[in-house]
Amino acid sequence: MNKIKGVLPPMITPFKENGDIDYEGFISNIQKWNKDKIAGYLVIGSNSETVYLNEEEKLNLVKYTVENAAPGRAVMVGSGLESTRETISFTNKCARLGAHSALVLTPFYYGSSMTTKSLIKHFTTVADASDIPILIYNVSKFTHVNISADAIVELSRHPNIVGMKDSNGDVPQLATFLRVADPSFQVMTGTFSAWYPALALGITGIISAMANCCPNEITETQELFDAGKWEEARDLYNRMFPVNAAVTGAFGVAGLKFATDYTGYKGGRVRSPLLDSSDEEKSKIIEILQRAKIKNTGEYNGH
Amino acid sequence: MNKIKGVLPPMITPFKENGDIDYEGFISNIQKWNKDKIAGYLVIGSNSETVYLNEEEKLNLVKYTVENAAPGRAVMVGSGLESTRETISFTNKCARLGAHSALVLTPFYYGSSMTTKSLIKHFTTVADASDIPILIYNVSKFTHVNISADAIVELSRHPNIVGMKDSNGDVPQLATFLRVADPSFQVMTGTFSAWYPALALGITGIISAMANCCPNEITETQELFDAGKWEEARDLYNRMFPVNAAVTGAFGVAGLKFATDYTGYKGGRVRSPLLDSSDEEKSKIIEILQRAKIKNTGEYNGH
Amino acid sequence: MNKIKGVLPPMITPFKENGDIDYEGFISNIQKWNKDKIAGYLVIGSNSETVYLNEEEKLNLVKYTVENAAPGRAVMVGSGLESTRETISFTNKCARLGAHSALVLTPFYYGSSMTTKSLIKHFTTVADASDIPILIYNVSKFTHVNISADAIVELSRHPNIVGMKDSNGDVPQLATFLRVADPSFQVMTGTFSAWYPALALGITGIISAMANCCPNEITETQELFDAGKWEEARDLYNRMFPVNAAVTGAFGVAGLKFATDYTGYKGGRVRSPLLDSSDEEKSKIIEILQRAKIKNTGEYNGH
Amino acid sequence: MNKIKGVLPPMITPFKENGDIDYEGFISNIQKWNKDKIAGYLVIGSNSETVYLNEEEKLNLVKYTVENAAPGRAVMVGSGLESTRETISFTNKCARLGAHSALVLTPFYYGSSMTTKSLIKHFTTVADASDIPILIYNVSKFTHVNISADAIVELSRHPNIVGMKDSNGDVPQLATFLRVADPSFQVMTGTFSAWYPALALGITGIISAMANCCPNEITETQELFDAGKWEEARDLYNRMFPVNAAVTGAFGVAGLKFATDYTGYKGGRVRSPLLDSSDEEKSKIIEILQRAKIKNTGEYNGH
Repeated sequence: MNKIKGVLPPMITPFKENGDIDYEGFISNIQKWNKDKIAGYLVIGSNSETVYLNEEEKLNLVKYTVENAAPGRAVMVGSGLESTRETISFTNKCARLGAHSALVLTPFYYGSSMTTKSLIKHFTTVADASDIPILIYNVSKFTHVNISADAIVELSRHPNIVGMKDSNGDVPQLATFLRVADPSFQVMTGTFSAWYPALALGITGIISAMANCCPNEITETQELFDAGKWEEARDLYNRMFPVNAAVTGAFGVAGLKFATDYTGYKGGRVRSPLLDSSDEEKSKIIEILQRAKIKNTGEYNGH
Repeated sequence: MNKIKGVLPPMITPFKENGDIDYEGFISNIQKWNKDKIAGYLVIGSNSETVYLNEEEKLNLVKYTVENAAPGRAVMVGSGLESTRETISFTNKCARLGAHSALVLTPFYYGSSMTTKSLIKHFTTVADASDIPILIYNVSKFTHVNISADAIVELSRHPNIVGMKDSNGDVPQLATFLRVADPSFQVMTGTFSAWYPALALGITGIISAMANCCPNEITETQELFDAGKWEEARDLYNRMFPVNAAVTGAFGVAGLKFATDYTGYKGGRVRSPLLDSSDEEKSKIIEILQRAKIKNTGEYNGH
Repeated sequence: MNKIKGVLPPMITPFKENGDIDYEGFISNIQKWNKDKIAGYLVIGSNSETVYLNEEEKLNLVKYTVENAAPGRAVMVGSGLESTRETISFTNKCARLGAHSALVLTPFYYGSSMTTKSLIKHFTTVADASDIPILIYNVSKFTHVNISADAIVELSRHPNIVGMKDSNGDVPQLATFLRVADPSFQVMTGTFSAWYPALALGITGIISAMANCCPNEITETQELFDAGKWEEARDLYNRMFPVNAAVTGAFGVAGLKFATDYTGYKGGRVRSPLLDSSDEEKSKIIEILQRAKIKNTGEYNGH
Repeated sequence: MNKIKGVLPPMITPFKENGDIDYEGFISNIQKWNKDKIAGYLVIGSNSETVYLNEEEKLNLVKYTVENAAPGRAVMVGSGLESTRETISFTNKCARLGAHSALVLTPFYYGSSMTTKSLIKHFTTVADASDIPILIYNVSKFTHVNISADAIVELSRHPNIVGMKDSNGDVPQLATFLRVADPSFQVMTGTFSAWYPALALGITGIISAMANCCPNEITETQELFDAGKWEEARDLYNRMFPVNAAVTGAFGVAGLKFATDYTGYKGGRVRSPLLDSSDEEKSKIIEILQRAKIKNTGEYNGH
């Protein structure tokens, strides 16, 4: 499998007011992203509220992604579950629907038992049984588990484990993973906050929540960097940094969905127990977007 | 609903070598516990590896518990899921199988969004729609979420929220919950490490992992306390403290299952990604059990 | 050395507007506390802003405490510094001024190096060289170091280490220290939030910030408990709990000093970088004090 | 004041077996570093065990540094203390001895009170009264305080606050400080683990513990980067990364001092409560140094 160059949006799932999935909105988003400068799609990743979806809903989203993604674009699925056996079973269901690769979250409920040894066994067992290549997903913000460099040394050498997404924004740790991993293994960053430093370290792929609302700015940062225009790349990175902080930190998934609405996609509602952004929160997000020169190209009209 | 007096084991789920549930072992455990001094059962709680079970397996365990529990004993189910709607749907499936009450975990994946406001909305919505009374389950060790006293003030007044299990062992916080909650609301401790102080605070119910292997020692601590034999109660608490620390902390669920095997129940295997206890770990657990004067009444013979 | 029964205020240091110590206020506080139901004094403990005092100032406070404490009352000094040699030197200066015992903080700057081994060596070396008995001071809120039970096993057997103050409010840990320590060793709690559970565990001594403003309520909780009036003791504990939370948590040392002013002692200013309580904070503290039925017996008149 | 280009060693303080400072060793280190590719010296910084030194010792070290530093090299002193007034007084004593600038640590004992507001007031008051320019020192590993971007926005505009050292290795936060600070303000990294990403962000100065044992490798990384040889710079960064991890993380100050001995400087003993490296630790450090191709040019002969 070739390494990914560019950005994948970890697609949000738009919900209707009654809490059901707005599949039409979901499909229209893909069709709009098909025209953006992106490398592919991550479906049912963390930002999709996947933990709030049942299996049928998840498989529907996978199916629609496969059917609607522009040709040549990667379709990655977030298929990790807590148990090894359920992860295998679900990953292969996704594979049968046409997914190209699977992003497998570190199990985390019994966090203190998720040692290097148990994680190596888990990912190895999943990779051995998976019909598609897998990537490791490390996101301590949600899991409070942080995979060790020792685990990456071993797992990166498995023929069916092709890479990882690290969302911690811990750049020295990212450098460590790059240093110890097998050269064939792709380390991707999972947060735009680390994008410019990651490019400088030689990283070429990113899966960033902000790609839901502002995919092209992420790609353009990379294009500028690759063209040797470092200062311009850094300026664009700095300009978008507060947007990323807003939609991944302060305002959470609800804020991300509002920003996605604002830039012309279907953000939609969140599912409970998440709460939709308040009017005050929306005003703050708009202010941050405007300061970053992001235009309101969506249907948001102040209500 | 009357307040619970005594101990409920949060029942472990014995697995066979191939990873399937050993339902026979599970049922035989209940039959054995029926003869112990316990107040009832918690099925599919944290120690059951419920995060590794699929829905069919979970409902089977609920059904077998209802069918096999001795008359008069409480049957509580751990029915909390991440989304409000799935929690309601699953809780009511358990209710239809005959469960008496439901222990609902705080959602936690998007931890920083689990504010007092969103948790109040979640538990209120679940309680409104649940066919059986619910209790709140607070266990920061696994969730990294800690429900606030302000949330308890409000939720404890809901007619269908009858109590909570707090597993943090933070006794000043336990005292706070007791102080601010509606008098009708039952605060239970979820760890034996806080049992003696909890009794002193007037708490009467406990759901303790250690009740899987050593239920009677927990009840006897309470009986001694209630009889005014404080020093003896404290001595028993002190004697069993290291056992509890071993089976909830250092050695995890696998250690708990081994100790449960050792005292004559069916502990069985863990499900991957958990790893069974090593021989070295088993030796340490045996040493701790023996120091606490717990006898090998099971089939464990050193292999 | 006999075990302490009752409460020691970890005395605040009143500062004048220009930042100098108000020694007269300090002495008048001691004279007023001499009439309260307390067991003694802790001078230059955490709540004294000792980290903001120079050596001369500290020794002055020790001297004035020795000179003014009512006969029969314990005079303990907070003499711990980061280095072993400076701790010994300073402790013995305090001893020469007449201090009865020394409360020695765990060193903490190089926190990850403060292992069981290095702490055992530190406290043993200090105890060997100290002219007065020492107690260990464990307060993770400030130090981010937490002494292990293994260290207490060993240190509690040293003839010149007579006890410890544990301010973490972690009652299971308190129970552990009691269980593993030598019977001669006195475990004191350092926070009123754990006072009632601590009494139930058999603890008899407390060093509580709240004793600066409300010493008698702490002693009365103990008197009620000792008289077998557990419910009344618990009620008093519950009534004062929010006051304690306010003056140790939410409002910090500045809040404690304001509450101390309010109840008729000299609280005075804090030293920079601490900031004095704002008017809004003062209003909130008054509200909490009034809800606990604590009267304004000081000079505070709303300004 | 011009921005610093290059590396400052935060000089270790060699102690003799009896715990006294080995001033001769200290001076000989400066004379040896004078021949290395460094930009100046930080005296009495975190790695100097400054928290274990008394004022006289600290001032001696400042004096010897001023006297022995090669002409044209920066002499920065770590002069921050907990209180504002003591920090001012001590900083100006250092200034009178000839120090060029002062690195002022965030106060931290009352960590939850170290808000943006109180830190702004502290640093502003110190800067107003200091006879030499000051820099802010942010090192959460030791202080558990993390200065906010809002504080940097304001403080970076103060004419006598010329920069900061950030030792957290949190590169997105480093990028944030760079983005929000006044252009005149110098953001330096305090850890080699962030050096290559920091160079890519436009940072030119570093104060790295590893500069005690391996100063030239840090400078050469920068020279390669500045010459556009990014891959070679990255290779050198990767090669030295494990050395840095060893001497700042796993093996602490004692490990750093041993590595400094190994490369021909005077490392010397640590002061209690720190413990010198064990033989086993020394073996591991040697292995890491050898893997990074660092030669034994010191007097270490296996004992």
